[in-house]
Amino acid sequence: MQKLPLEKAFLYVEPGPVVLITTFDGKKNNVMTISWTMVKDFDAQFCLLTGPWNHSYQALVKTKECVMAIPAADIARKTVQAGSCSGSDTDKFKKFGLTPLKAEIVRAPLIKECFVNIECKVEDYVKKHGIFVLQGVNVWINNKNKDKRLFHAVGNGTFTVDGKKLNYRKIMQSKLPAGI
Amino acid sequence: MQKLPLEKAFLYVEPGPVVLITTFDGKKNNVMTISWTMVKDFDAQFCLLTGPWNHSYQALVKTKECVMAIPAADIARKTVQAGSCSGSDTDKFKKFGLTPLKAEIVRAPLIKECFVNIECKVEDYVKKHGIFVLQGVNVWINNKNKDKRLFHAVGNGTFTVDGKKLNYRKIMQSKLPAGI
Repeated sequence: MQKLPLEKAFLYVEPGPVVLITTFDGKKNNVMTISWTMVKDFDAQFCLLTGPWNHSYQALVKTKECVMAIPAADIARKTVQAGSCSGSDTDKFKKFGLTPLKAEIVRAPLIKECFVNIECKVEDYVKKHGIFVLQGVNVWINNKNKDKRLFHAVGNGTFTVDGKKLNYRKIMQSKLPAGI
Repeated sequence: MQKLPLEKAFLYVEPGPVVLITTFDGKKNNVMTISWTMVKDFDAQFCLLTGPWNHSYQALVKTKECVMAIPAADIARKTVQAGSCSGSDTDKFKKFGLTPLKAEIVRAPLIKECFVNIECKVEDYVKKHGIFVLQGVNVWINNKNKDKRLFHAVGNGTFTVDGKKLNYRKIMQSKLPAGI
């Protein structure tokens, strides 16, 4: 995996893909599958919506760290499988063939099989709405990943994989951040 | 356009598409293009990230109403064009051939050319983070829209259109809300 400038992290969250969030609670790694995320700013700030109903919630609150791992479509099935059970009684890494790798800054693991991994600190938790505010601190990309298509949850158990690309860079020129 | 049960609104935001947000400030309609949204709950609650740098912000704060309109890929170009200028000096509906239609509950307009339109009330504004919390109150779908593919911003001026579909309903069965 290669390091990517922090300012490029949002490019992998802005499209609204299914993501994997890893945590380490001091004893065990865990991972959850989620689509309720959004970009908060161009400098690797993100929002994540979750709460006590998810096993990862306690680790997020306690450690204030996680990794947002972005799977490409080649691991769509195991990503969805990881979202269909709980870390409270399952070692999802083992069960679904996901490989935890040591991150550089946070103690939550990177996922070897993911296209992009963003190490994140929890900056704030808006309790009233269940919104975690994350600050990316390190970004890794696996450019050797043959499949670079992200995939998106419809919410009814079906998913769509990125298809045709459209290029409107000329129209958007004045709106793009420098270097993007 | 047909009305859709409120509980189905999230199906069109969960995939992370580019959306159009319309407002009516008491004098003029306006529309902005944005990708910084996420689902907040299954009952048509959404988050939207924006602030004073957008012309629509004042109308959102003042009227506490908007429409989240979801374009299909057939109007991708005009959706991006609407995001490349400001309502402060441009009637974007006129300029880009978007047709405002009277909504039922809110005063912000629906967009005729959009696949789905969600009438929303602003429930809260988390000033510290610039997060609007929206509650959908009415959902419209244009089932006659030939193009039902949503499209997603990469953030660099390129976009991806929904391609191949994956069906993991069996894996997710226990996680799906009733009726979805």
